[in-house]
Amino acid sequence: MKATLSALVLLLLTCGNLPARPPAAGPEAAVGATLDQQVAAWNRGDVDAFMQGYWKSSRTTFAGSQGVVRGWQAVLERYRREYPNREAMGRLTFSGLEITVLSPQAALVVGHWELQRRPQRLGGIFTLVLRKFPEGWRIIHDHTSVVRGR
Amino acid sequence: MKATLSALVLLLLTCGNLPARPPAAGPEAAVGATLDQQVAAWNRGDVDAFMQGYWKSSRTTFAGSQGVVRGWQAVLERYRREYPNREAMGRLTFSGLEITVLSPQAALVVGHWELQRRPQRLGGIFTLVLRKFPEGWRIIHDHTSVVRGR
Repeated sequence: MKATLSALVLLLLTCGNLPARPPAAGPEAAVGATLDQQVAAWNRGDVDAFMQGYWKSSRTTFAGSQGVVRGWQAVLERYRREYPNREAMGRLTFSGLEITVLSPQAALVVGHWELQRRPQRLGGIFTLVLRKFPEGWRIIHDHTSVVRGR
Repeated sequence: MKATLSALVLLLLTCGNLPARPPAAGPEAAVGATLDQQVAAWNRGDVDAFMQGYWKSSRTTFAGSQGVVRGWQAVLERYRREYPNREAMGRLTFSGLEITVLSPQAALVVGHWELQRRPQRLGGIFTLVLRKFPEGWRIIHDHTSVVRGR
């Protein structure tokens, strides 16, 4: 009995000393990296770098409260129009990301976004569909909503 | 020259008499059928049948202007609460559907929705992600927005 207990204690200690699980690999990690890069770009005021997260195609779509914007260039112009300067851009955070891998080449992300800015915060939810391209995972469709009173 | 012209006319007449292209098969058609069934169910006031278009899972999500609703049952309850009777349900139409097949088992649909009802129409855009299950193509995520002034 004593030997069994010692063995159990040893096992627990050994487990406790195991290195932390390596960071997730595969589509989830790559999709997360694309979004991290977008947030970092936004927060240094670099809309062009932010836009690298989107598929550079006339077929890329952005759905919002004003309807559907079609094409990478039009999405870029919308961002420039809606957020003309650093003050308007505020500080972006994403949270509660739920990444669903749909295939080795496609993923769905649902999450919350928030812009800390004056006079008031702006935030809501987004749905992103990404595909894997030779250059990496890129957003082919973005549906973003403002949620009031969060 | 006359023979060539006659041949051309004959060719055109023949082409004109060819049967119409058979209806699209594959994922697009099956996804379209799921949505058609939803519209028909809605317009006969059958919310339960409408809900058959959604994956019957606690992981099904509906994103809207009030945030994310989680789980098939909660999505059903939201519809029942927002549209308690035939008058509130109005008459539903979908238009401008753009179906993107992401894999043999996953698809993205972007489209417009409209409810004809009194005192005023309500409409907007939606993003749906569907997956193929043994029972058919089902919506695993719905992001619906109201677009004002359409």
